[in-house]
Amino acid sequence: MKIVVLKFGGTSVGTTNKIKKVAEIIASYKKKNFKVIVVSSAMGGVTNELIKKSLEISDNYSDTEHDVLVSAGEQMACSLIAGRLIHRGFKSRSWLSWQLPIITVGRHKNSRINKINKNKIMKYLNEGGIPIVTGFQGINYENRITTIGRGGSDASAIMFAKFFKAERCVIYTDVEGVYTTDPNKLKKAKKIKVISYEEMLEMASLGAKVMQPVSIQDARLNRIDIEVKSSFKKKSGTLITKRSKIINNKIVTGITSTQNDSKVSLIGVKDKPGVAASIFKPLSKNLINVDMVVQNISANGKDTDLTFTVKTEDLNKTKKAIQENKYINYRKLMFEKGVSKISVIGVGMITTPGVTFRMFQALANKKINIQVISTSEIKISVLIDTKNTKKALIALHKEFKLDNKK
Amino acid sequence: MKIVVLKFGGTSVGTTNKIKKVAEIIASYKKKNFKVIVVSSAMGGVTNELIKKSLEISDNYSDTEHDVLVSAGEQMACSLIAGRLIHRGFKSRSWLSWQLPIITVGRHKNSRINKINKNKIMKYLNEGGIPIVTGFQGINYENRITTIGRGGSDASAIMFAKFFKAERCVIYTDVEGVYTTDPNKLKKAKKIKVISYEEMLEMASLGAKVMQPVSIQDARLNRIDIEVKSSFKKKSGTLITKRSKIINNKIVTGITSTQNDSKVSLIGVKDKPGVAASIFKPLSKNLINVDMVVQNISANGKDTDLTFTVKTEDLNKTKKAIQENKYINYRKLMFEKGVSKISVIGVGMITTPGVTFRMFQALANKKINIQVISTSEIKISVLIDTKNTKKALIALHKEFKLDNKK
Repeated sequence: MKIVVLKFGGTSVGTTNKIKKVAEIIASYKKKNFKVIVVSSAMGGVTNELIKKSLEISDNYSDTEHDVLVSAGEQMACSLIAGRLIHRGFKSRSWLSWQLPIITVGRHKNSRINKINKNKIMKYLNEGGIPIVTGFQGINYENRITTIGRGGSDASAIMFAKFFKAERCVIYTDVEGVYTTDPNKLKKAKKIKVISYEEMLEMASLGAKVMQPVSIQDARLNRIDIEVKSSFKKKSGTLITKRSKIINNKIVTGITSTQNDSKVSLIGVKDKPGVAASIFKPLSKNLINVDMVVQNISANGKDTDLTFTVKTEDLNKTKKAIQENKYINYRKLMFEKGVSKISVIGVGMITTPGVTFRMFQALANKKINIQVISTSEIKISVLIDTKNTKKALIALHKEFKLDNKK
Repeated sequence: MKIVVLKFGGTSVGTTNKIKKVAEIIASYKKKNFKVIVVSSAMGGVTNELIKKSLEISDNYSDTEHDVLVSAGEQMACSLIAGRLIHRGFKSRSWLSWQLPIITVGRHKNSRINKINKNKIMKYLNEGGIPIVTGFQGINYENRITTIGRGGSDASAIMFAKFFKAERCVIYTDVEGVYTTDPNKLKKAKKIKVISYEEMLEMASLGAKVMQPVSIQDARLNRIDIEVKSSFKKKSGTLITKRSKIINNKIVTGITSTQNDSKVSLIGVKDKPGVAASIFKPLSKNLINVDMVVQNISANGKDTDLTFTVKTEDLNKTKKAIQENKYINYRKLMFEKGVSKISVIGVGMITTPGVTFRMFQALANKKINIQVISTSEIKISVLIDTKNTKKALIALHKEFKLDNKK
């Protein structure tokens, strides 16, 4: 019998009525003879409510106690799911992280799962039980409750899928899957049936709403098929899997766009080792998130120009950090607000020549000027004026035949 | 260094502001060089809110999952208290029942603490830490979370005081202590400074609002001094201790009254073994709580009269249970609504003759008719017409000099 891991996010278990629906979803897998492991988040809003309380207690609330406090959220949700399945006649129970245990390493609030003791769950599965496991948490070697920093309950679900060699990990959430582009920005956006880990990672700006990139990376490393689907609608979702399993002739899988970025250019930077590092060190220290970085070759062999983007809200901090740092040498510093990064992503472009040209031509046809270009193996990103974002999305979505994708 | 156990009830930790005050109370004991063990209930309202959710999930919610669900309440409260103490510079942490562990026996929702593993808490106390322990719960030998049926967090606190041989167990609650009579019924009610376990148990109808009788009994058996006091007002409370520690010349410690009782009399019941049992068996089966039971000697050697009280809301059920049971033989069945039981309680009456007379005379002076009388070693109870309750309370409170007690 095959094992499937089902993960439910906060909105999926947000009310007792939703939990009843979740129980029916779980039951449907059980009826298909899967061995089902359920990983649940806290009921939507509960974690934030608890964090709010902790901040009323202290503006510097203890990390260890933070983990004790918020982990209660998943405990309550798991009990309610198990309670509903028992009510419906199934053998089910909640399993708290210390009862297995799920062992984590790393600091409080930011731990990661190191080991899951399988024995008890395996026995329980073999007895026909449906274990409901607390996501987002574990215990450390000191027997204290910890929470997982990045990826949260998604990361828990992936680790369960890994340790139990699950057939599949299904992430139930409040969206129907991954789309060719943000449906809020472009109505014609279509749900993607299958996408590779690598594409999904490149589509982080879309994917983050669906699943934490760190969990996608974990799934990629462990070759775990992930299905992202809605817990509210009975529709197939998006399968995230390895490239070799994907058979289609799409060149571009999806298009992403940012908004409200700012472009920073340092003109006449010395073209020698260590210069880039000296520029980004003060930015990193100031917790400024640098996105697209482009440096062209030195035309004169002496100096070069460096461009990168930051969120516009970080622009003033960025200016200050660069201007105050005497170790950065440049001739001129330029800033521009209101730029957007448009990226087309697809593993198909590796084997298909001319994708770059088609992208640039499609933009040129709409008289959209490309300011900066950066490419990776499966992605082409360009910076354009923010006011052209929508026009660019429409043009590229059509150019790469995503409009008529099923 | 002496150990003190401090227990905080739901209203005492009802908001984050109240938790901050609770932390100051804890700190004051620490500053007095006590080793402090704190036992906390869930924040007021949280347990009920969780039970409400469970009933939305199932009208027959699993007992095991019920315990997982509601035990999260104490976990959250303990984290917040510990978080506050840490914020204030103290060494403190939450200890969850599985981390010690606190071992319980018995069924879910109705377990009792069998053993507390002292090692970790003792070590932590010796390191100067303030452990904040979850009340109302433990784990059973199957490693599942359980909750304590009767007594709740009070029972947990008493057990901690017992296992750690605490100097004292302080029950912080929303009342200032135990009163000579219900202050809501009689303004002149005075706070009692010291009361014996036995008196406190007899005053259950008052005491239950302060502390569960089962916990008082546990304390009595283990000779643990209990102090009941308010977490909101800096005032001394009531000390519940053993008789021999109490030096005073009071005859009566307190007066209690019930309301809305009904009196049931079976006239002409056969005076032979097993008759009383045959009457109360169907009542017990119907979960009818029988209070005062009086049977006088048989005047003719053949039959006798039996009187008892039930809550008026149970009267119809009681009638039905008796009339439908063919094994009960009697000549006549009588019912009367609107009776109240007035009890005067005091260990002093054992050695003081004439207390009964003084009680009856005081009532007679107010023309209050006594319907039924029942006495124990330290209590005299009478049944009177409910409409005379207040008059009786005033008269007796004055007669036994409780009005001017300090």
